[in-house]
Amino acid sequence: MRASAAACRMNLGTLLNGLLVSVVAALLWKCSKLSEQAFLLEEELHMAQRSQELSQARIDYHVALQALQEQGTRMVCTGKMHTDRICRFDYLCYSSEAEEFVFFQSNFSVMLPNLGSRRFQPALLDLSSVEDHNTQYFNFLELPVAALKFMPKPVFVPDATLILNRFNPDNLMHIFHDDLLPAFYTMKQYSDLDGEARLVFMEGWGEGPYFDLYRLLSSKQPLLKEHLKNFGKLMCFTKSYVGLSKMTTWYQYGFVQPQGPKANVLVSGNEIRQFASSVMKKMNITIVKTGESDRGTVEHENKGEANDQYVVIFSRSTTRLILNEAEVVMAIVQELQMRVVTVSLEEQSFPSIIQVISGASILVSMHGAQLITSLFLPRGAVVVELFPFAVNPEHYTPYKTLASLPGMDLHYMSWRNTKEENTVTYPDRPWEQGGIIHLEKEDQKRILKSKEVPRHLCCRNPEWLFRIYQDTLVDIPSFIELLKEAMKTKLNLRKGKATSTVHPGRVREAQCQTSVQTTKEAKLSVSWQIPWNLKYLKVREVKYEVWIQEQGENTYMPYILPQQNYTFSENIKPFTTYLVWVRCIFNKNLLGPFADVLTCRT
Amino acid sequence: MRASAAACRMNLGTLLNGLLVSVVAALLWKCSKLSEQAFLLEEELHMAQRSQELSQARIDYHVALQALQEQGTRMVCTGKMHTDRICRFDYLCYSSEAEEFVFFQSNFSVMLPNLGSRRFQPALLDLSSVEDHNTQYFNFLELPVAALKFMPKPVFVPDATLILNRFNPDNLMHIFHDDLLPAFYTMKQYSDLDGEARLVFMEGWGEGPYFDLYRLLSSKQPLLKEHLKNFGKLMCFTKSYVGLSKMTTWYQYGFVQPQGPKANVLVSGNEIRQFASSVMKKMNITIVKTGESDRGTVEHENKGEANDQYVVIFSRSTTRLILNEAEVVMAIVQELQMRVVTVSLEEQSFPSIIQVISGASILVSMHGAQLITSLFLPRGAVVVELFPFAVNPEHYTPYKTLASLPGMDLHYMSWRNTKEENTVTYPDRPWEQGGIIHLEKEDQKRILKSKEVPRHLCCRNPEWLFRIYQDTLVDIPSFIELLKEAMKTKLNLRKGKATSTVHPGRVREAQCQTSVQTTKEAKLSVSWQIPWNLKYLKVREVKYEVWIQEQGENTYMPYILPQQNYTFSENIKPFTTYLVWVRCIFNKNLLGPFADVLTCRT
Repeated sequence: MRASAAACRMNLGTLLNGLLVSVVAALLWKCSKLSEQAFLLEEELHMAQRSQELSQARIDYHVALQALQEQGTRMVCTGKMHTDRICRFDYLCYSSEAEEFVFFQSNFSVMLPNLGSRRFQPALLDLSSVEDHNTQYFNFLELPVAALKFMPKPVFVPDATLILNRFNPDNLMHIFHDDLLPAFYTMKQYSDLDGEARLVFMEGWGEGPYFDLYRLLSSKQPLLKEHLKNFGKLMCFTKSYVGLSKMTTWYQYGFVQPQGPKANVLVSGNEIRQFASSVMKKMNITIVKTGESDRGTVEHENKGEANDQYVVIFSRSTTRLILNEAEVVMAIVQELQMRVVTVSLEEQSFPSIIQVISGASILVSMHGAQLITSLFLPRGAVVVELFPFAVNPEHYTPYKTLASLPGMDLHYMSWRNTKEENTVTYPDRPWEQGGIIHLEKEDQKRILKSKEVPRHLCCRNPEWLFRIYQDTLVDIPSFIELLKEAMKTKLNLRKGKATSTVHPGRVREAQCQTSVQTTKEAKLSVSWQIPWNLKYLKVREVKYEVWIQEQGENTYMPYILPQQNYTFSENIKPFTTYLVWVRCIFNKNLLGPFADVLTCRT
Repeated sequence: MRASAAACRMNLGTLLNGLLVSVVAALLWKCSKLSEQAFLLEEELHMAQRSQELSQARIDYHVALQALQEQGTRMVCTGKMHTDRICRFDYLCYSSEAEEFVFFQSNFSVMLPNLGSRRFQPALLDLSSVEDHNTQYFNFLELPVAALKFMPKPVFVPDATLILNRFNPDNLMHIFHDDLLPAFYTMKQYSDLDGEARLVFMEGWGEGPYFDLYRLLSSKQPLLKEHLKNFGKLMCFTKSYVGLSKMTTWYQYGFVQPQGPKANVLVSGNEIRQFASSVMKKMNITIVKTGESDRGTVEHENKGEANDQYVVIFSRSTTRLILNEAEVVMAIVQELQMRVVTVSLEEQSFPSIIQVISGASILVSMHGAQLITSLFLPRGAVVVELFPFAVNPEHYTPYKTLASLPGMDLHYMSWRNTKEENTVTYPDRPWEQGGIIHLEKEDQKRILKSKEVPRHLCCRNPEWLFRIYQDTLVDIPSFIELLKEAMKTKLNLRKGKATSTVHPGRVREAQCQTSVQTTKEAKLSVSWQIPWNLKYLKVREVKYEVWIQEQGENTYMPYILPQQNYTFSENIKPFTTYLVWVRCIFNKNLLGPFADVLTCRT
């Protein structure tokens, strides 16, 4: 193309006379067009190569570019609120110059929801799993597709991509709770977010100490925000999903109210354990079968008791130390006749720690992010969380909440240092490690005198930091007593069968019959058939709940019955209309749905 | 397998002696096992064939069955509330005996959210796009996977399946608004819900008069609830999505409050038009380019004016008639010099009607479901909706709301019969066609006297039905005057350029400088750079809004400025901290996001 352009220019001299001027002009125009086209083609080829480099997945650059130019960006989201939204995009772009995502508008673009300026109040969606945090918002800039003509040619990302913010990739608890679990289950919602999906982390941090964990989510290398500029000024994701599901999180960090379990926990231990076993599989960890109770209806055998049981002590090596760790270990060995394995994030690889934890009977650790590893404990294990002096275990419960999730089948216990003489404080350290000397003298005094940190908001309460960074001399007698209790509970737990979580179906063929006895007395007979699923189940206790409400009244009378029919005569008036609801209950707490309400006239 | 079983039985006689009894027993056992296995294999083969018949997609029956038996059902949902939820399932099953969906629980099943009994309060999700309607709820029964052993072998559906309720498949308005548009965009959320997806309608109705429209959503035949039992007692969907997006609906039918536009409309005309053009493409309708204004920045030419313009009158042939339709047609032809085309659902095919409507300049119709076809009108067209006597157009606005969606680019006008002498009532008809003779005499009198139907709830208000089923003699002068006005507006609309809907990005590099003049006077200078996307745009008017708030105060002072910097001195106090917000505004109403707040101390 370039050669032919040059040839055209060479002929120019000989052809130049009055009559041929118009021919030359036409040729020139053609030449310049050709060379322009050649340039564009070369550029496209180049950009296509860059897109190719990015991934093994093939992409026809020209087709992609044309699709973008003609159709623009398309977005379809789920969720009513920005806190509850995940969006799927075709051709979402990112300008590394503006450091913003770009939505190209055309006659064929789609924006659902189309919020207008409400998109900025406060944002289209949360990019991390932490709810409504103002540093975690996602939005995009809009441009008409026509603007593409004036912009650098885009690099296309052919992979299905999940775009999200990691909330705090330095901290193991945050990594699992805020990032890995939400990303794992967000990916399960969309069939193209499979093991080949691309992840893009937009929070702007570096890889962080546990980047390998993020690599487990997909076989493709995750991209950081800082990587994006390597792919040119404009980068377009052919298929992407933006945002994270909050369905699996169980804890709120105290931005609005003091920290604690989320108001509406929607995850059970079963989903956490599915995630954990997927992570372990990817780490090539062989799960040691310890004969722990398994969920289901089949009875298990208690093989491999006692001898292969061991306690794991999670040791922190720089802050928040257990000062008499050796003594603690000795006491456990002597008093419980159990092996003790000490692990430490500073000294061992993460997978090797998980390998050990996945077979442990008891996990002991000072309060801290490392306790998130309890999600890898086998069913039936015990978590013992230690708290320094003046820190109330009831106020800091991310691990207690995790261990207590139904179906997690862990037993949680906390131990608290109640003896001030057993604590070592560090008022002189930097504030982020709990130092307090930067505070006013009076505040320092108050903190030193206090016997318990009052409830507080996140994230820099100096009294909290001061107390949580204390080292502790663990009081052996009280600690051993707790452990013995834990072992007892564990044994009792193991004897009990795994409980079924199957809910009853609705009762069938519910009906009522009425009769009037006297002017003041009447009878109301209600009968129904068992729920359809009951015939396939072994249920310890099946009961039925009947609610009877006089039409127009606000209150109702509830009855619990063991049989499938009953004749009510107490408080039943003649010539009155009653509404009757019936539902089945398994084992006292598994409530079924009510059958359609019956209208019964005496 | 059967033959070898028979052979075993034949040899039985010769082999029978004392020593060989144990051998025989072993053989018998083997034979019975073999025949059992053969039976199972035959059954599996048969079920595999049935699964195969259901679809061209291949499925390995044995693999599917094993997956179900080992892993059970897996569910991952989006959405916080049941009104906002769509769930993706692996191996969701349906028992036609119980007429219920079944979730098989195993150690590997996943249920997100795991709501326990809250799943019945009132339901897991809405199966139609109508919010929280108690006849439209979805739930499932639970069973342990172990129960599969005692149940009939399942038929597997290999297609990605969307399971939903049609809300009212007899009515064209409901079909488009409640079913087709929501299903279309629900399918856009999930990559495997493509043109090959299977749709299953669970509301329990028959095909209905417009089933062909539902067929447009996918190349596969949709299944009705009644079809499901043809596939055996237990049917399992390998991949399915349950529920519909409510993102595209714009109208609520008055179940809780009188009918009207939804409080929070999230769809724009652009998305409606994308859907319409997809439907037209599938109906092989060629879109007649009439040179109507197109959204975008390119200026259009007004080619093909006047002559090829025509008015469509949608005529109803049994109820709610325009009694002087011929006269109306004549008047339009004479007074507006435009062709008139009359269409009727009773006499023409739906695609042929859409073909006509897609090129019309004006659509005239009595209020009714047929007006939903206005979503196929070209941009710039006019919708004229006629209302019978005593029916207030402001109270019944599904089509007005549709036409007024931003980006729909339609002009809506209503005409109302104000002359009682021009209406013909039908008090003697059945109640569902507006008859009132079943009512008390007094109620009849009241209704006959009333000059306007008061606002009412759905769905059987007799006064509303009585009035809306009247026939109308259209008053020609007032109607023609309205049409002429419509034509004027249309011309004016066409002259105006299509307005851009690109919002400003945030202003960049916002900063403030302060100086103290006297003990009572200070100055606050704020400056910023234009939004990044502005350089690619032609915007008629760019303004900036600055909010200044004294720290700790509840109020702020807003300023609108044309330039990128300003020095404030009025009301600025020395030694005070001000919070300053800046945002850009395009063309008076396109608000951008605020830049990060500035903290400025004088």
